[in-house]
Amino acid sequence: MAADTPSLSGGSLLLAWQLKDKTVLIIGGGDVASGRIESVLVADARITLIAPRAGLHPLTKQFLDTCARITYHDRVFAGPQDLEGVDMVLTAIDDVEVSRQICALCRERKIPVNVADIPPSCDFYFGSQIRSGPLQIMISTNGRSPKLANIIRKKIEGCIPEHAGEAIEKVGELRSKLKERAPGVGGEVGKRRMRWMVDVCSSWDMDELALLDDNMMARLLDEGWEKNTVPRIQDLGGHNKKAAGVHSVRASSLLLPTALGFVAGIACTAAVLLTRRH
Amino acid sequence: MAADTPSLSGGSLLLAWQLKDKTVLIIGGGDVASGRIESVLVADARITLIAPRAGLHPLTKQFLDTCARITYHDRVFAGPQDLEGVDMVLTAIDDVEVSRQICALCRERKIPVNVADIPPSCDFYFGSQIRSGPLQIMISTNGRSPKLANIIRKKIEGCIPEHAGEAIEKVGELRSKLKERAPGVGGEVGKRRMRWMVDVCSSWDMDELALLDDNMMARLLDEGWEKNTVPRIQDLGGHNKKAAGVHSVRASSLLLPTALGFVAGIACTAAVLLTRRH
Repeated sequence: MAADTPSLSGGSLLLAWQLKDKTVLIIGGGDVASGRIESVLVADARITLIAPRAGLHPLTKQFLDTCARITYHDRVFAGPQDLEGVDMVLTAIDDVEVSRQICALCRERKIPVNVADIPPSCDFYFGSQIRSGPLQIMISTNGRSPKLANIIRKKIEGCIPEHAGEAIEKVGELRSKLKERAPGVGGEVGKRRMRWMVDVCSSWDMDELALLDDNMMARLLDEGWEKNTVPRIQDLGGHNKKAAGVHSVRASSLLLPTALGFVAGIACTAAVLLTRRH
Repeated sequence: MAADTPSLSGGSLLLAWQLKDKTVLIIGGGDVASGRIESVLVADARITLIAPRAGLHPLTKQFLDTCARITYHDRVFAGPQDLEGVDMVLTAIDDVEVSRQICALCRERKIPVNVADIPPSCDFYFGSQIRSGPLQIMISTNGRSPKLANIIRKKIEGCIPEHAGEAIEKVGELRSKLKERAPGVGGEVGKRRMRWMVDVCSSWDMDELALLDDNMMARLLDEGWEKNTVPRIQDLGGHNKKAAGVHSVRASSLLLPTALGFVAGIACTAAVLLTRRH
């Protein structure tokens, strides 16, 4: 056995944890806790929140008022009995000693735990995140620089196609309809389904995919899947208005240099020809 | 309590799972398993691999030959005893029945498990990933469209600053040096450290941060931190060659339209003036 390749180290295992119908215990109700509540709600979990009402952040209060999936206890952490039936624990309180105790209790019980601001008491970290419908992106600098993670997040936000979230939603629907039409797990039909879906995603732009409606999906399956081809959006009665918009923006960014060059050309030629005349 | 906000659902909880000094059991040695091995090695875990040698993917064999952190067993999964001392289980085998049994054994033992291709047997999913040194990015479409996740990954790769990974590495070093110079957890000094690091990351470009060496970091702390300011890279004896490169690329993209405009201007003026002469 040889030594490890140096690039194969120093990172984390990035995961999309599934929390549907699971219970997450959040201890603390401040600024950090309110962010955790949002992330956990997005993942369809039930939340048990333990935090004295006096210290609740306005956003935490808002979640309590508007979300039926939170069970709230107006008190501090009371001991091991609070961990019964819990699938994950997130703490965000100022008391370092209590935080460490909670972490130890969780580890005895093999409950995944994150203690804000105490990395050794974390089974996992959070990162800078982007969400657009079913699209979720996480940026982690593995604890090196939260600020650079945020700067990179903003750059990424600027380069994700505007309608990516809708496109993913629609492609998910198309995939379900295709599975109904050509059912079966794995095998030849599974492979053919996968190939055709890849062809659709490669042939159509993201903003075209976002325009798919029930009618177009039915025609795409009739005229595409059944004939093992991928028609263009225009062939299905769709108009790619959004894509046209993108092209015109690109074109307009070239107008100014072209115009300036044109004027400079006029000026130079006029100068040369008019000078020669005399 | 009101109904849930619709945007607060349908997602996953994206996490950076910590595996340093943990043991991950990977069952299966094919194509999918080789990808899992790489992701897990990046996170500094030890791996136990169980898979008959006959079915090993070339990449899996390569990892076995080059990486000291893998313990290999040339056989199939043998039962509960294989799960002793294991912190996470990833299976990628064709046998659906055995996969489901492994999942059930893991859940009894509260070991996080992912069974490739059987979503209900997964506590977590993997996503499309980007890695550049300490920078890790995951793109998840929550199972809707792996192909669109890949397309988005490529778009994101194209818009991340070239030297982002190095910049993050250097900022991490600078932060450690600053903590040595101005130690203490939390409180006023912690806040001042955080503010100054944010100022540095906001004032310098990513490619400037990537150029930081030991000497420049020492000067940045002496002339910046100590005086509560952020000097420019030029003030510390650095040259921003990379940034200059970026600007010249941008400028060159305007050359063609300008030149074409110039030629058109010459042609039009010459035509007008020469026609008039006669």
